[in-house]
Amino acid sequence: MGQRERFVEACIILRACLGANPATRRLALLYNAPMRVELLTIGSEVIRGATLNTNAAYLARRLGSLGWIGRRQVTVPDEPAALRAALREALERAQVVITTGGLGPTFDDVTAAAIAAATGLPLVPSGSAAAHVRRFYKAHHRRLQRAALRQALVPAGAAALPNALGTAPGLWLQLPHTLLIALPGVPGEMRWVFEHAVLPRLRRLARGPALAASMIRTVGIVELRIEHALRRLRLPANVEVGLYPHLQAVDVQLTATAPTARQAARTLRQADRAVRRALGAFVYGSGEDTLEAVVGRLCVARRATVALAESCTGGLVAKRLTDVAGSSRYMRGGIVAYHNDMKRKLLGVPAHLLSRHGAVSPQVVRAMAEGARRLTGASVGLSITGIAGPSGGSAKKPVGLVYLAVADRRGTRVLRRQFHGDRAGIRAQAAQVALDGLRRSLSALPLPAP
Amino acid sequence: MGQRERFVEACIILRACLGANPATRRLALLYNAPMRVELLTIGSEVIRGATLNTNAAYLARRLGSLGWIGRRQVTVPDEPAALRAALREALERAQVVITTGGLGPTFDDVTAAAIAAATGLPLVPSGSAAAHVRRFYKAHHRRLQRAALRQALVPAGAAALPNALGTAPGLWLQLPHTLLIALPGVPGEMRWVFEHAVLPRLRRLARGPALAASMIRTVGIVELRIEHALRRLRLPANVEVGLYPHLQAVDVQLTATAPTARQAARTLRQADRAVRRALGAFVYGSGEDTLEAVVGRLCVARRATVALAESCTGGLVAKRLTDVAGSSRYMRGGIVAYHNDMKRKLLGVPAHLLSRHGAVSPQVVRAMAEGARRLTGASVGLSITGIAGPSGGSAKKPVGLVYLAVADRRGTRVLRRQFHGDRAGIRAQAAQVALDGLRRSLSALPLPAP
Repeated sequence: MGQRERFVEACIILRACLGANPATRRLALLYNAPMRVELLTIGSEVIRGATLNTNAAYLARRLGSLGWIGRRQVTVPDEPAALRAALREALERAQVVITTGGLGPTFDDVTAAAIAAATGLPLVPSGSAAAHVRRFYKAHHRRLQRAALRQALVPAGAAALPNALGTAPGLWLQLPHTLLIALPGVPGEMRWVFEHAVLPRLRRLARGPALAASMIRTVGIVELRIEHALRRLRLPANVEVGLYPHLQAVDVQLTATAPTARQAARTLRQADRAVRRALGAFVYGSGEDTLEAVVGRLCVARRATVALAESCTGGLVAKRLTDVAGSSRYMRGGIVAYHNDMKRKLLGVPAHLLSRHGAVSPQVVRAMAEGARRLTGASVGLSITGIAGPSGGSAKKPVGLVYLAVADRRGTRVLRRQFHGDRAGIRAQAAQVALDGLRRSLSALPLPAP
Repeated sequence: MGQRERFVEACIILRACLGANPATRRLALLYNAPMRVELLTIGSEVIRGATLNTNAAYLARRLGSLGWIGRRQVTVPDEPAALRAALREALERAQVVITTGGLGPTFDDVTAAAIAAATGLPLVPSGSAAAHVRRFYKAHHRRLQRAALRQALVPAGAAALPNALGTAPGLWLQLPHTLLIALPGVPGEMRWVFEHAVLPRLRRLARGPALAASMIRTVGIVELRIEHALRRLRLPANVEVGLYPHLQAVDVQLTATAPTARQAARTLRQADRAVRRALGAFVYGSGEDTLEAVVGRLCVARRATVALAESCTGGLVAKRLTDVAGSSRYMRGGIVAYHNDMKRKLLGVPAHLLSRHGAVSPQVVRAMAEGARRLTGASVGLSITGIAGPSGGSAKKPVGLVYLAVADRRGTRVLRRQFHGDRAGIRAQAAQVALDGLRRSLSALPLPAP
C-alpha cells in the first residue's frame, strides 16, 4: 500500500468515525489524497450508442493530471427519474461528482431540476446565470426567448460557471459532503468550461501539502521496455508511475507527493527529467500533445515542409497531419498511391523495382519517399507501404508487414516493421510509426531500431 | 404513451405485484416489451480515459435492433470490490445485464469471481469452457499454461459462450429474475461473441408475439425534413420511428409490434418500403452499413474505379475509402493537394484559375476533379476544396465553405456547401458529403440540391 492509498484509507475511516463531517472532507483535501470522483453522463444519444462518450474520457484524463482517480462512470438517458436516482447514488458514494449534459434551454435539459430534487434544494433564479445568458444572446445577435431564461434557474447555493461557447452556464455546488459540478454536454463547451472555470478552482482546492503530476508521451517503445528502464532509475518512493499504453505509444504519468507543494514540484521536476533522459528519443511530448501537433511545431521551428506517399495507410497519415490547424504552413501534400500505376506514374517508382521486389519492399518504399520529395519540393518526404489485410498476405510477406522510408537532405532511411492486429489496428500503428519517422527526421534523430 | 411503453408499464407493475416472480419475466418476454438492459464496462483503461468506450456504444446499437433500450451504462475499474457492488446494483434494477471486460487469464481479470460473489453462486470448473481454452491454445500453437485454465472456472449454472478470436469464453447465466451475459473486453472478441453466440439466443428469447426492427441509413438530409416526409406517410400506429442524427447523416430506425411475428415482419416490410420510397436518393444503406462500404460495393458491381483530389479534408476521404477491406480493387489513389503548387503541378489546375478565383472556387474544384480522373484513368474523379478553419475565412468565403466536384463519363458536376462547426466537424461533414458524391455518381443520381 503506497503513501497515497494510506492517506485515502485514513480519510475514509475518519470520515466514517466523524459521521461524514465536513471537516473530514477538508482533511482529505489537506492531505491531498486522490479524491473519489464519479462522472455522470446525461445523454440519450450515448445510451442509444449513437455517440461515443468522449466527454467522460476527456474528464478522466484531465482529473488524472490532478492525481484524482475516477471511481465510476455512469451514463443515463435524459429522463428526470433515471437522472435523479443516479445523482442520489453518486452523491452518496463520491467526494466529487461531475455531470455532463442536460443543461440547455429545451425540455430535454433536465439536469438543474434533477440536482434540485436529488439534493432537496429549491431552484432559484441566479443573477449571474441570467446575465450570462443575456450576454451570450446579445453577443450572437439572437433574440432572447423566454425559454432561454430557464437556464438561469439554479439549485440554491450553486454558482454559475461562465461558458464562452454556449448559452448554458455550468454549475458549481458545494454540498456538505460532496462537491457537485455540472457541465454542458456539447464537447467543445464542456472542455471550455472545464479548462477555464473548473480546473483552476480544483487546483486551488488541491493546494497545500501537496501533489504534482506530469505526463510524458512516448512513441515506438513497448510498456515492458519502459518498465525495465524505469526500474533501473530507482525513483524516490514518493513518486508514482502510471503507464497508459496505446497503439505504438505509451503515456507515462508521474505523480509526486510531498509535505509541501514546493517539495512536490521539485521532486516531480527531478523525476520527470530523469525519466525523459532514460527514455531519450522515444519521448515526443508532454500532457495532451499529439504526435501530429509535435511534428507541426517542429516543421514551423525548422521551416521545413513535408510530403507523403502513402499506400497501406491510404490517407490516414495525411489526415492526421492536416487535423492540426495551421498545417497548411508546412504540409505540401500527399499521394495516396494505392494502385501500382500511381506509384509508377506519379511517384516515378521504376517499373522493374515493382515487378522484381513487389510493392511491399524496401526498394519500392525508398523510391516512393524520394519521389514524393522530388515531386513536391518538400524538405522531407515520407512513404509507407505494407499489407493491412485481412487478405493479401503470404508466408514471405505476412499481413501486418510494413515498410517506411524517410527522405531528407541527409539521405533516405528505410524501416521494416511487423505489426499485429486487424486492418484498422495495423493501419493505425503504421500511421503512428510514420508520424514518428517524420518527427525523427525533423529532430535529426535516427529511425528506431526495428 | 405508445403501445410498447404501456406494455412495459404493465409488466413493471405486474412484476412488483407478483414479487419479482420468474413468471412475470416470461410475461415481459411474451409481450415483447423492450427489456430493461444495463451495460457494465469493466476496465481501468476506460476509467482513466485512456480508451473510449466503444463496446458500450456497439452493444447499445445492436440491442436497439431488438427494440431493447439501455437504461444505464456503468463503468468501473478492474477492482473486485467496485465490480461486485456495481454488479449487485445492476442485477437489482435490470432484466438483462451485459458486462464487458475482465474475463481473461490474468489477475486483472476479475469478472467471473465477482459474478460468483455478487450472486452467491460458487465458481466451478466448466468442461465446455476448459475445452474451449485447450482448443484455442492448440489452434494457435501455444503451450497451455496453468493460469489459462482459470478461464474455465465459471459461476455454477453459467454456460460458456464460444469465442473464435480469443482464449476467454463468454458467459451466459440465467438468474431467477435477470439474465446476465459476460463478454470479453477486447472489441473484436466482444463483437464476435455477441454476434455469433449472444444475438441469436436473444432473438430466440424475443420470439413470439412479436417485434421487428430495421435501420435505414440516410445521408445529406436533415432530421427536420425526414420528420416532415414521414409525417405525410401516416405510418400505422404499431410502427415506431426513431431518428439518430450524426454529422450529415440520419439513421432511421423502424420498429413494428404486432400479435404475431409474421404480422410484425409484414408491417415492418411495408413501412420500411414506404419510408425508403419517401426518402428516395437520400437512403444509402441499411443496418450497420457505412457509406464507404456502400461506395465500395457500388464500385465492384459497376466495375468502376475512383480517384480523389482532396484539399480541405487532407486525406480523410481516402482514409475512409481505404478503411474498407478489398478497397484496392477500385481505389486507384488520391492526391492530397494541400498547397496550390500541388493543385497546379499534379492535377493540372490552370494557374490563372487559381489566381483569378482562388483555391476555394467552383472553377478550381472542377479542374481538380477532372485532373484526378485524367491523371489516374479512374472512372470517377472526386475533388473537394474548402476552408476548414479555424482561420483562413473571409466575409465572401467564410470558414466552413466547401466546394465538391464529381467528374465521370457523364461530365462534371459541382456542389457548394456551407458547413458549421469546428475544424474537425467541418472536415468530417465535408468527407461525408464527398463520399455521398461518389455514391451518387456511381448510382447515376444527380448531386443533391445545395
